[in-house]
Amino acid sequence: MLLPQIHQPSDLKDLTTEQLTVLAGEIRQFLIEKLSATGGHLASNLGVVELTLALHYLYDSPKDKFIFDVGHQAYVHKVLTGRMDRFDTLRKYKGLCGFVKRNESEHDVWEAGHSSTSLSAAMGMALARDFKKEDNKVVAVIGDGALTGGMAFEALNHIGHEQRKLTVVLNDNEMSIAPNVGAMHKYLGKIRSDKGYLRAKDEVEQLIKKIPAIGGKIAKTAEKLKDTLKYAMVSGVLFEELGFTYFGPVDGHDLPKLLETFRQADNVDGPVLIHIVTIKGKGYLPAEADSYKWHGITPYKIESGQVVKAAGNPMYTEVFGQTLIELAEQDERIVAVTPAMPGGSGLFPFAKRFPDRMIDVGIAEQHAATMCAALAMEGMKPVYAVYSTFMQRAYDQIVHDICRHNANVMFAIDRAGFVGADGETHQGVYDIAFMRHIPNIVIMMPKDENELRHMMKTALDYNEGPIAYRYPRINGLGVAMDQQLVPIPIGTWEKVREGENYAILASGPMVQRGMEVAEELKRDGMNVAVINARFMKPLDEQMLLELADKGTRMLVVEEVSQAGSMGSAVLEFYAAKGLHDVTVGLMGVPDEFIEHGSIKDQQCEAGLTPENIAASLRALAPGKAWTFQKNSV
Amino acid sequence: MLLPQIHQPSDLKDLTTEQLTVLAGEIRQFLIEKLSATGGHLASNLGVVELTLALHYLYDSPKDKFIFDVGHQAYVHKVLTGRMDRFDTLRKYKGLCGFVKRNESEHDVWEAGHSSTSLSAAMGMALARDFKKEDNKVVAVIGDGALTGGMAFEALNHIGHEQRKLTVVLNDNEMSIAPNVGAMHKYLGKIRSDKGYLRAKDEVEQLIKKIPAIGGKIAKTAEKLKDTLKYAMVSGVLFEELGFTYFGPVDGHDLPKLLETFRQADNVDGPVLIHIVTIKGKGYLPAEADSYKWHGITPYKIESGQVVKAAGNPMYTEVFGQTLIELAEQDERIVAVTPAMPGGSGLFPFAKRFPDRMIDVGIAEQHAATMCAALAMEGMKPVYAVYSTFMQRAYDQIVHDICRHNANVMFAIDRAGFVGADGETHQGVYDIAFMRHIPNIVIMMPKDENELRHMMKTALDYNEGPIAYRYPRINGLGVAMDQQLVPIPIGTWEKVREGENYAILASGPMVQRGMEVAEELKRDGMNVAVINARFMKPLDEQMLLELADKGTRMLVVEEVSQAGSMGSAVLEFYAAKGLHDVTVGLMGVPDEFIEHGSIKDQQCEAGLTPENIAASLRALAPGKAWTFQKNSV
Repeated sequence: MLLPQIHQPSDLKDLTTEQLTVLAGEIRQFLIEKLSATGGHLASNLGVVELTLALHYLYDSPKDKFIFDVGHQAYVHKVLTGRMDRFDTLRKYKGLCGFVKRNESEHDVWEAGHSSTSLSAAMGMALARDFKKEDNKVVAVIGDGALTGGMAFEALNHIGHEQRKLTVVLNDNEMSIAPNVGAMHKYLGKIRSDKGYLRAKDEVEQLIKKIPAIGGKIAKTAEKLKDTLKYAMVSGVLFEELGFTYFGPVDGHDLPKLLETFRQADNVDGPVLIHIVTIKGKGYLPAEADSYKWHGITPYKIESGQVVKAAGNPMYTEVFGQTLIELAEQDERIVAVTPAMPGGSGLFPFAKRFPDRMIDVGIAEQHAATMCAALAMEGMKPVYAVYSTFMQRAYDQIVHDICRHNANVMFAIDRAGFVGADGETHQGVYDIAFMRHIPNIVIMMPKDENELRHMMKTALDYNEGPIAYRYPRINGLGVAMDQQLVPIPIGTWEKVREGENYAILASGPMVQRGMEVAEELKRDGMNVAVINARFMKPLDEQMLLELADKGTRMLVVEEVSQAGSMGSAVLEFYAAKGLHDVTVGLMGVPDEFIEHGSIKDQQCEAGLTPENIAASLRALAPGKAWTFQKNSV
Repeated sequence: MLLPQIHQPSDLKDLTTEQLTVLAGEIRQFLIEKLSATGGHLASNLGVVELTLALHYLYDSPKDKFIFDVGHQAYVHKVLTGRMDRFDTLRKYKGLCGFVKRNESEHDVWEAGHSSTSLSAAMGMALARDFKKEDNKVVAVIGDGALTGGMAFEALNHIGHEQRKLTVVLNDNEMSIAPNVGAMHKYLGKIRSDKGYLRAKDEVEQLIKKIPAIGGKIAKTAEKLKDTLKYAMVSGVLFEELGFTYFGPVDGHDLPKLLETFRQADNVDGPVLIHIVTIKGKGYLPAEADSYKWHGITPYKIESGQVVKAAGNPMYTEVFGQTLIELAEQDERIVAVTPAMPGGSGLFPFAKRFPDRMIDVGIAEQHAATMCAALAMEGMKPVYAVYSTFMQRAYDQIVHDICRHNANVMFAIDRAGFVGADGETHQGVYDIAFMRHIPNIVIMMPKDENELRHMMKTALDYNEGPIAYRYPRINGLGVAMDQQLVPIPIGTWEKVREGENYAILASGPMVQRGMEVAEELKRDGMNVAVINARFMKPLDEQMLLELADKGTRMLVVEEVSQAGSMGSAVLEFYAAKGLHDVTVGLMGVPDEFIEHGSIKDQQCEAGLTPENIAASLRALAPGKAWTFQKNSV
């Protein structure tokens, strides 16, 4: 075994290419075993074993900078930089992060979680290097999926223009998470598969040699022809046009070939793009066979590849997917739009039932949003299905194209609230804060999966502008499901528990938690009302006025950034009404990034526990001196 | 004169090409005259006279959809669709909008103000058309500058993949607002200028014919060669690779040629890209000579091209640009980053003094933000100079790449608050709401141009994460300028007027207004304190506690969206401290989009007038029944 002797990248330097190849096999074995217990991003990491070895073998991290786009393919990098012994804690609370993480190692120089940032990071690092007159290498590793993100193109365009020395490794595995769409994908496929295309290159070169050199004019033309041919034949013409020197395509699992290509590329002065072709899941048959399923995987049995499934109520995501089919059966105007997340968004059944009404735009949140505006303005009923965290990338388009046009776009915002193991780059805790100040939008969150269904009907029947429903990345409560879907009057909350003097105003899963707390407090003689504050915008102003009128002391409990939350809207409302003596406490996510762990860990870190909610309510009593610290922790 | 007879597009249909050419001249004359009085986007509109005529002549608006990217080049379209008589009111309050505006005309189908949205809009409209089984045309007109925006590439990629019938007109004038940067620009330049490139095509075709056909093998190769050559020679190879049929380049001022090309393109089934080359400012020599200056112009004298300059104190923008030079003289780490707005951001003097430290990335707000994070993480001190409204497009990158990394990026946020004539697409009223919930960021706004300078020094000396200073699109107050720049302690406000019982907490220009109101109220016997709440985040918690302790009644006055404002942060703070009986009123921009007009008009519409501020303060008196309506209007 070679692997146990690798504690840092320098331990690779004296290995032979053959030994490196053996090591690649050992790393694969290590990952397959470790992840069978913890789960994690298996397929993408099995695909980059040789690439990561080549980088650490040839270059000198951390002086040379490796930037992994998205960062979920950095496990091999973690193995090679002294973190092997922490893999049992992968993606667990206070354990090894599933992404690149600077506080873990000096070799981690750029964190990500959202796609398509690596080229901009590489450009920044290359510029800084040149300003500082240093000479380190900068290497960005980006997948073909991430390349469809608009900001990657912005960076390509700028890099091609500036001509700084940096290397882009295009890790082409025909997959981002879902099979890729887009013209760029088709273009890469052509390069990859068309062997004739490459053979033609040789043949043409032979042919050119045979062209007789009759006089100056033809010779000149022949020269030009050679240049032009070269230009045309190099399969990376598109990248060459943008100012890169293109190498490839190279088999990304052929270590000697990889090393050779990197060495060649090192001699080029400006930006270089090395196009490598890899197989996601390489070396583990179940993952090779279904790399989509094995992108992010729960624990599994190694021999059978059988995934250990947790039993449970249907997830909100599934309820969304099924209900959308029901609605689409009755309304032809419905189309579903996803930025490369058809599976994660629960839309596979919909895509199967209505293939023509399922629009996957690639990793293109901005384009998706603006396209939805146009679809709606032309009378369609687009449902933009998107994770809360990725929706951040469409903020400007939501303001400028959807809300300003007051277009009837429906937002299905998945993974709202804490997301668990993916951690701080993926938390869905900002959407209320970044949406509720935008004019014209309606925002809802259901207390359970049955209410989600009614909200979807509410959104469909609403024709006065954009409307959003957000739901968490958890199982539903297992409540009974109504068959008849009835729209909920816009801006109405629901009192789910009567009470006196005190009220919890909660959204989503916090409604159920509020109920538990209220039961608990009953024993102390407090009779706390619980309100399902299911519209974050507009608020139920009538109910708020009634609560104030009765002198009710309120605690707003939400699993979103407390700054800019619905609770903050409640305060604004009372201030605007000149009601300056109403008692309102706020509980939400504090002003910091909450790291990976279970959703329960994260709620706990944010202080959103039953005990804290109870304590906060007690603290609202008249004359209490208790004050909220970091939102009541 | 033909122009007076054109009241709607159908009036063009019977004109000859010669008459259309005459009409083009008349339209130019009309625009040059009208804009000499009102100001406006002259150069871009003079560039698209023939194009707009061709579109309305050939197609059938509003059944056929014309989408103008950014929309500041739609004046000709407005002239041809019955709005000639409103040009005296251009960009004035309640007057003709400077951009496409749906409530003005049925021919206006897509509004914009931000760049690069037209292709997504076109795709949405083409999809909707196909879903509805209709057969209208969809034409997007996009400039070469707007094409560098990432979302335009996301759309190109998706359009090329879907192969719906639609037309993209690439209006290539070698300019967005500033001269373009980027590899794409260089590529277009090559197509445009390299006559040899086109001549080579002919020569090579001749050469191929001479290749002897010796047996099957060579013949086949020759065939392949022909294909490959064709493929390489077509100058739009990059677009062809992405799935478009490419036409061009065509002289965009040659009306017969334009008509011919559009007619040819109509026969193509999938997406088409027509590359036209135009001259910004065409037909008016001063504008042709300096199309940058004439992009958006104030009133001018037609004969001389002399611009009527309003006298006044230096604008905040200029103070920023000059001060940045001072700071950069002393600190080598400073680099300025702009997304295609070097002039608008006041950075021309900086670029002249430090050409190597001025990085213009093109219209690429996302890439710029993430690149700044990397520059900062490598020890540089990047200043991201950006308009508040365009910064919206980098929201995700600010969260995910800058603030989560806690990178020392400085934001110079220009055009914060109302922007006047550009109107609702450009208002800088959301940045507080979309930034203040992001962990790690510091946000400031100066009360005058001298304080802006100190804030820039504050930002430079601050090394604990991202820090922003925002400033309005107005002249400074003409205050004395300190030569010695002294950092302001983070999170400290300044009491600029002592008072009792009442206090105005204001930011930016509202501080001065607050002073005026306080003087006014003195006559009524109210002694109102005025606080320069110069940090929006973090708040001056000590001062807030003191104010609460004294029972001061506060009115927060800001020229930003009231929802999510600093005022709302003040309410959150008191709620978190368990201080539930503090009297705080909020004044800000109401929950609606405010249209074009003067900044004063817009402040008036938002209710941010001295009279309203005074009335709101009086209404905070104990026992008053007055309530805030739409933020105190």
